[in-house]
Amino acid sequence: MSNAKPFRPEHKIPVAVLGATGSVGQRFVALLTEHPWFEVVALTASERSAGRPYGDAVHWLQETPLPAAIAAMQVLPTAEPLPCRLLFSALDTSTADAVEGPLADAGYFVVSNASSHRMDADVPLIVPEVNAEHLELVHHQNRPHGGAIVTNPNCSTIGLVMALKPLADAFGLEQVHVVTMQALSGAGVPGVPSMAVIDNLVPYIGNEEDKLETEPLKILGRYGDGRIVPTDLTLSAQCNRVAVLDGHTECISVLLGKRASQDDVRDALRRFTALPQALELPSAPRQPIHVTERVDRPQPRLDRGREAGMAVTVGRLRPCPLFDFKFVALSHNTLRGAAGGSILVAEMAVVQGLVPGG
Amino acid sequence: MSNAKPFRPEHKIPVAVLGATGSVGQRFVALLTEHPWFEVVALTASERSAGRPYGDAVHWLQETPLPAAIAAMQVLPTAEPLPCRLLFSALDTSTADAVEGPLADAGYFVVSNASSHRMDADVPLIVPEVNAEHLELVHHQNRPHGGAIVTNPNCSTIGLVMALKPLADAFGLEQVHVVTMQALSGAGVPGVPSMAVIDNLVPYIGNEEDKLETEPLKILGRYGDGRIVPTDLTLSAQCNRVAVLDGHTECISVLLGKRASQDDVRDALRRFTALPQALELPSAPRQPIHVTERVDRPQPRLDRGREAGMAVTVGRLRPCPLFDFKFVALSHNTLRGAAGGSILVAEMAVVQGLVPGG
Amino acid sequence: MSNAKPFRPEHKIPVAVLGATGSVGQRFVALLTEHPWFEVVALTASERSAGRPYGDAVHWLQETPLPAAIAAMQVLPTAEPLPCRLLFSALDTSTADAVEGPLADAGYFVVSNASSHRMDADVPLIVPEVNAEHLELVHHQNRPHGGAIVTNPNCSTIGLVMALKPLADAFGLEQVHVVTMQALSGAGVPGVPSMAVIDNLVPYIGNEEDKLETEPLKILGRYGDGRIVPTDLTLSAQCNRVAVLDGHTECISVLLGKRASQDDVRDALRRFTALPQALELPSAPRQPIHVTERVDRPQPRLDRGREAGMAVTVGRLRPCPLFDFKFVALSHNTLRGAAGGSILVAEMAVVQGLVPGG
Amino acid sequence: MSNAKPFRPEHKIPVAVLGATGSVGQRFVALLTEHPWFEVVALTASERSAGRPYGDAVHWLQETPLPAAIAAMQVLPTAEPLPCRLLFSALDTSTADAVEGPLADAGYFVVSNASSHRMDADVPLIVPEVNAEHLELVHHQNRPHGGAIVTNPNCSTIGLVMALKPLADAFGLEQVHVVTMQALSGAGVPGVPSMAVIDNLVPYIGNEEDKLETEPLKILGRYGDGRIVPTDLTLSAQCNRVAVLDGHTECISVLLGKRASQDDVRDALRRFTALPQALELPSAPRQPIHVTERVDRPQPRLDRGREAGMAVTVGRLRPCPLFDFKFVALSHNTLRGAAGGSILVAEMAVVQGLVPGG
Repeated sequence: MSNAKPFRPEHKIPVAVLGATGSVGQRFVALLTEHPWFEVVALTASERSAGRPYGDAVHWLQETPLPAAIAAMQVLPTAEPLPCRLLFSALDTSTADAVEGPLADAGYFVVSNASSHRMDADVPLIVPEVNAEHLELVHHQNRPHGGAIVTNPNCSTIGLVMALKPLADAFGLEQVHVVTMQALSGAGVPGVPSMAVIDNLVPYIGNEEDKLETEPLKILGRYGDGRIVPTDLTLSAQCNRVAVLDGHTECISVLLGKRASQDDVRDALRRFTALPQALELPSAPRQPIHVTERVDRPQPRLDRGREAGMAVTVGRLRPCPLFDFKFVALSHNTLRGAAGGSILVAEMAVVQGLVPGG
Repeated sequence: MSNAKPFRPEHKIPVAVLGATGSVGQRFVALLTEHPWFEVVALTASERSAGRPYGDAVHWLQETPLPAAIAAMQVLPTAEPLPCRLLFSALDTSTADAVEGPLADAGYFVVSNASSHRMDADVPLIVPEVNAEHLELVHHQNRPHGGAIVTNPNCSTIGLVMALKPLADAFGLEQVHVVTMQALSGAGVPGVPSMAVIDNLVPYIGNEEDKLETEPLKILGRYGDGRIVPTDLTLSAQCNRVAVLDGHTECISVLLGKRASQDDVRDALRRFTALPQALELPSAPRQPIHVTERVDRPQPRLDRGREAGMAVTVGRLRPCPLFDFKFVALSHNTLRGAAGGSILVAEMAVVQGLVPGG
Repeated sequence: MSNAKPFRPEHKIPVAVLGATGSVGQRFVALLTEHPWFEVVALTASERSAGRPYGDAVHWLQETPLPAAIAAMQVLPTAEPLPCRLLFSALDTSTADAVEGPLADAGYFVVSNASSHRMDADVPLIVPEVNAEHLELVHHQNRPHGGAIVTNPNCSTIGLVMALKPLADAFGLEQVHVVTMQALSGAGVPGVPSMAVIDNLVPYIGNEEDKLETEPLKILGRYGDGRIVPTDLTLSAQCNRVAVLDGHTECISVLLGKRASQDDVRDALRRFTALPQALELPSAPRQPIHVTERVDRPQPRLDRGREAGMAVTVGRLRPCPLFDFKFVALSHNTLRGAAGGSILVAEMAVVQGLVPGG
Repeated sequence: MSNAKPFRPEHKIPVAVLGATGSVGQRFVALLTEHPWFEVVALTASERSAGRPYGDAVHWLQETPLPAAIAAMQVLPTAEPLPCRLLFSALDTSTADAVEGPLADAGYFVVSNASSHRMDADVPLIVPEVNAEHLELVHHQNRPHGGAIVTNPNCSTIGLVMALKPLADAFGLEQVHVVTMQALSGAGVPGVPSMAVIDNLVPYIGNEEDKLETEPLKILGRYGDGRIVPTDLTLSAQCNRVAVLDGHTECISVLLGKRASQDDVRDALRRFTALPQALELPSAPRQPIHVTERVDRPQPRLDRGREAGMAVTVGRLRPCPLFDFKFVALSHNTLRGAAGGSILVAEMAVVQGLVPGG
């Protein structure tokens, strides 16, 4: 990795956000308007919003103001033609099912936060610190004109695999048990009714446990011969929705492939660094995993914002009577776990020369 | 159990609440003022409150009004002499450490919610549906005048062992993994600062994991020859504080001692009944474990109140890729898990003739 | 009033709940299943639910369990014919607009919580402690077969007029300024998104201020010659939504018609009693207004449940530098302010012989 | 004002934070470590913390990390000698009562967020956009060595007077009625217990209404002849604590001194600018008052952060049936309303040459 050095594109790369009025779409817009490499040139939404200025069509709920230039952009329908090749998809699943494939076939490079194609055999499911090499898969999509689909995992998967990767590398991983306490923003707006979470929690999130038990196997898998061989690991997940705005907290227990001391595990987490750090990608955290020794941390409100919401915080590392170790991991679900994570994927794809015109 | 029949004491049994001004103490008072067997004749608190009318000394935060007769009672210091033999202790640990032993030695029968003596070899740690027979231990305390200490487990332990007992009986239990999401009322008042739990959670509760990993072994253990042989079971616990007022939610995974189908497990939970039910004790739920099939239940606000807060609700029973089954259990932490649980213990002790004058 | 005495109908009166699956509808069902006078014989809902057992059609979110007999009832469409004459309407406004008039014309006696007809000149808008005599208006609806519409005011209006009535009677009222902090349950389910109220509040509720500035004038008005003369009073209202489940809190300032001391005002509030109390109606609180001297009360969670949620609690009475006095009033918005209030209206109508077959 | 131009001190001015471990103290530290003019050279706290590294003594709860250099500073006792002349006081009232006067007499320039001296006749109570000219009062404190006390108003006062100032200037002000919904951070840590505000609110904040009814009269008063003549205005305040972390929301009704249209009022608010803006002080918002036309705004979470938390947002401007107009104002209580406000006061004092060595 020592030869890697910061990459800078010669020109700003034009991008579009698909599904720009929803809550993840808004996060994309907020992050991309300040991005050093990318420039938002188009925003799409449903037919109902198309043709209106974005500032009118969107019910902007970000804590940062909507830039005037973006507010004035006329919303396009989510369909060809689009005025750029790199598309960020914040579409809901059913729309993504219908349009992402045709757009990729038409030559667009779609970086998607939707779940539609994550588990497709030829679609990379990327966490850049974990499996950047899986991006090679796009060459096997065999689409004309350089089009491709690249995906970002589910928000709760990202914090988990970030924390697991250094352990898998250093010690091997055999079993992982995870119980999540997930934030409300993951469900979008209107999302979870307030009556459901004031003085309450909901011990269920539709399809979430399935995703959390399967996506990590692909992400932590090995790329070779044009395909991914899933890692051999057994996962059990239980997912809960709690009254937190942003930040998924995960209670994780791990059985390692070989003996390791608590100091070994802490060091592996703390020293973890990867290609995005070596390349100094704009959205990459300087240190991907922050390890805290404070007995009552990580906490969503106090730790989700580390490194602009792109770092994962791990704490409470201790032995587990049933597995080897247990600990708590926290990640920002709409930054690292959605829009920010997708943008980091796109940055990596640009560096690898995969983005047409990028 | 078929010979058991409802027991009714001939007269109301006079009782005192020790530490009556705190939040658990208030719950005791609220429950006991409506109790068919017991009559509150004394309330104790710290020196600062002693001598004042209870209604002035207490900052009453229950949702039911404080009865005028109780409000008028003059608070006593927590010390001998007390005008009755049956004492409910809602003392904080340090006071309980100092006074419960001497009171028992002086002939008082102390039913304690404090943790001070729970793990003492000769002190019963009782959940009446689970190990009523452990009450025999009081005969081995060898205190003069019929005095004894009997304890109630930690609030998060109770929901867990209630759910585990039918499984242990039917299939044996080898491993239990539990992650809790615990309510704020468990920490009393002032307890957890609001800044700590609005848009946040705290993945740590002091000493809670220790209690949850050890108390169940004693409770599920076997009584014989004047002692308890702990059950042979490995437990791992992770405890979290969430923004819920009442009701501890626990994500539980179990490895059974022998093969069982999901229907077998559900049936064992659903059919569970025990001595308090057979005896129709006043505080006993008709059905100790409610099994729900609703995919998103149990939820604290909607399910904690079942059977006056004395039933445990289990839901989301499903296979676990790592253990045999996983499920969610919910119990009301200040009713079943504290004051209500202690009162049920006292009822059982009265029936067994252990309470002097009872 | 001294001649009034408890009334008891000879037989249970059959009733239907229109819009029974919504959140107010559920409250009606929960309250009516335990009612001494009324018996639920029909439940209606939209076409989507009609024909299904109520237990399947409803997403029951009450904290008390749904009785099995009610769960088994087959949901009817909200249309004639219905098997009883007394109907409780928990319909949303647009459905109420369409069906309440025709049902009344067909001979049904509709007690409605919807806003559709509240301000109609010939429709009584009733808070039984305040203006029971306005029920006379039904005779001027001139509908065949004894049909009529009687309404319940908006949830935030009820707490206000209950607190104002004794002041209006004793001292006259000239100006009222009110700022509300309203609970989430008023918006139903899904209602307010959780993202909107965690670490937040919304200083706006659609149409609420209009209702709060106009309904009290009718309710506090004088009935005569078949019509209501609104009271001469100026009201200003500001309405906010806060993260409270149940219980509307209102900061009220009043300018009285004549001089009064703070003790005079307190006494007027405390001694207030009215026809529902004299008649000992089943849903009437024993004491309609509870006055608290605790400096930090009323509080929604601690005070909304007084007298089964049917009493209003007033506290913090003190002089106002701009008006005469200011104080805080709290009422349970889905009990006193919706279903419970409607049922009390129906009880009063039954006593007055207005309900056909009642 | 056209001659004013940006001022820049030649060197960084050394400052100390008194009471640096509390929640307001932490905010001071977080803001000052990034300040272009000031450099933190000392931090004080109670005897218990003195002598320890700040990083150990503080329970850091800010969402930004504590800089290492600050963490390493040894905490001093809050007493002479201190290594700089400009002191920011985040002391609790009782400590401030005891030490601020002596420190000022010893030549220190104390900019205080404590309430101890706010209403002293010779102590300026400053909101720089409103009454910067009151700083002249320090010359009348007649303390040796250039020492003085300058104060910042109560957090709820600041948002109010900022919104009132343009109206007072343009139209005159006769009456103001305000009901607040205040954030939890105003009460510090541990502050408000979580049990008090989950599914609840508290309609009372000790002493808050007094401050809100008196401080504005001084701030909006006229300076002349070495004293402040309070403005002639009648205020009525009602203060509530709600489950919001940061951001005080105020429902305000105003009676103006002369006739004005709604557009006049909106324009006066929107065009408001003052000396801190002309001087481009580092902590001054570019536009002090943001006026929003969104019907459901301002909202604490979405609007408190405007201009780094230093702008006040006003919305829902509309006629009031009792006064002339009513509207909602929102301000960040620990930024604009406490630490940030104090720093802006200090900046203004530096520009005016009042700070010894500044």
